[in-house]
Amino acid sequence: MKLVSYSAAGRASFGLVQGDGIVDVGRRLGERYPTLRAAVAQALPQLRDLEGSAADIALADATLLPPITDPDKIICVGLNYRKHAAEAGLKVPEQPSLFLRLANTMVPHGGGMVCPRISTAFDFEGELALVIGKPGRHIAAADAMQHVLGYTCFNDGSVRDIQLKHSVTAGKNFVATGGIGPWIVTRDEVPDVGDLTLTTRLNGQEVQHGRLDDLIFDVPALIAYVSAFTPLVAGDVISTGTPEGVGFARKPPLFMKPGDAIEVEISRIGVLKNEIVAER
Amino acid sequence: MKLVSYSAAGRASFGLVQGDGIVDVGRRLGERYPTLRAAVAQALPQLRDLEGSAADIALADATLLPPITDPDKIICVGLNYRKHAAEAGLKVPEQPSLFLRLANTMVPHGGGMVCPRISTAFDFEGELALVIGKPGRHIAAADAMQHVLGYTCFNDGSVRDIQLKHSVTAGKNFVATGGIGPWIVTRDEVPDVGDLTLTTRLNGQEVQHGRLDDLIFDVPALIAYVSAFTPLVAGDVISTGTPEGVGFARKPPLFMKPGDAIEVEISRIGVLKNEIVAER
Repeated sequence: MKLVSYSAAGRASFGLVQGDGIVDVGRRLGERYPTLRAAVAQALPQLRDLEGSAADIALADATLLPPITDPDKIICVGLNYRKHAAEAGLKVPEQPSLFLRLANTMVPHGGGMVCPRISTAFDFEGELALVIGKPGRHIAAADAMQHVLGYTCFNDGSVRDIQLKHSVTAGKNFVATGGIGPWIVTRDEVPDVGDLTLTTRLNGQEVQHGRLDDLIFDVPALIAYVSAFTPLVAGDVISTGTPEGVGFARKPPLFMKPGDAIEVEISRIGVLKNEIVAER
Repeated sequence: MKLVSYSAAGRASFGLVQGDGIVDVGRRLGERYPTLRAAVAQALPQLRDLEGSAADIALADATLLPPITDPDKIICVGLNYRKHAAEAGLKVPEQPSLFLRLANTMVPHGGGMVCPRISTAFDFEGELALVIGKPGRHIAAADAMQHVLGYTCFNDGSVRDIQLKHSVTAGKNFVATGGIGPWIVTRDEVPDVGDLTLTTRLNGQEVQHGRLDDLIFDVPALIAYVSAFTPLVAGDVISTGTPEGVGFARKPPLFMKPGDAIEVEISRIGVLKNEIVAER
């Protein structure tokens, strides 16, 4: 299944992508669940039963929203690809190094990622993000995959000058700087995460390419690590870090500017595409 | 005004403390606002009109909740007292160094702060936190105080071994490790933040004592800095950092253990008291 959140005709809903249409799950479940997160938490079997239904609206008529519009947490991992650690001149870490993003930093597929006016160093980071379906705490790595609802593409847009001179938290939390989407592909459609490939393209030129089997901490390890300190709930987003090729590590550096097009493509998941827009 | 969130007789509400009682603002506003945050955002004048009303229930009959139960963001500052920077062996920073806490890390006055089972280095950090009343972005320091609803006590409980060996984010985000409360004292009752004094007591013994005029970045500076990257909304919590005396910087180190009592007292605001409990 491909799960989306969207708005159409002035109404927000969520649904299942079927071909070039969307099954309006929000309406079909009687408007009882305000968001996809609520439906996943409370009515996942009923949602699954709608797979294969006829589409209610054309995908082209919907404006996509972040797949989870109201996440309880967005947890990100720094330095999680061996080759990215090498390009940043850093040792392979012994533990995941985490930071949080605020929900208001997220921009859906097709939306504009906002280049802050105070920065000339707005960088891309293509990533695979997982979305939690089943809640849990102290989850063993061996059980972790049962807690995954699915996967989506993530662009962990980074204001490098602020990140490096002030704090990671500030540099990663400028409003509307991170892309997510277009949808969540459920876990059953991804037999082996390690077999996925990720490609980031800036104005059509490939700038990052990695395989998910280069992860230092894989999906089960990240879920085990995070759930050791916080209870995971449906809709939580954990992004898995970015491969080598980011802009600030290049010589010369390569940053995003208003008017640029940035894409993150992950095999089996899809393509997340955003335009870079100036802060108004 | 002293604003509280609480539960009593199985029902959650929020109100105004009057002497030893609480005016049930939630009920008096017709249950139209699910939380104090919603009432502050949408009905602050009506809330203010209830000041001086007769109390509806005794404070002693209420179980306090975090004053803001559903914050959009909790933003914390590391190293914001000159003397604390000195004890940590660090330079006075040129910019605030921020991190985020998840809402599920917050424990109300009277609640148990949970010492994680994997740590023997659970540390206290008494802090003054401000709560935003009026939304804004790119707020000038000169205008910042208008955006402050009020102040509360904060205990930025820190799992030091994880914070220092893994990441600040992980060390500061173990569930139920941070105290907040007991209430929000509105800005009009605090003519000069710099004149406030903060004292932390572990089992009755003073372990931290500072004056708010030792802040490197004061309240207007923090609001200006934070609102440069994110839109502030009603109920946002910004904690201002901790003075010297934290446990890990002591020789020998002094950490909290189950059964301990920890208090953060701030003049004009009140006393936040929590017990340390073992993770079950």
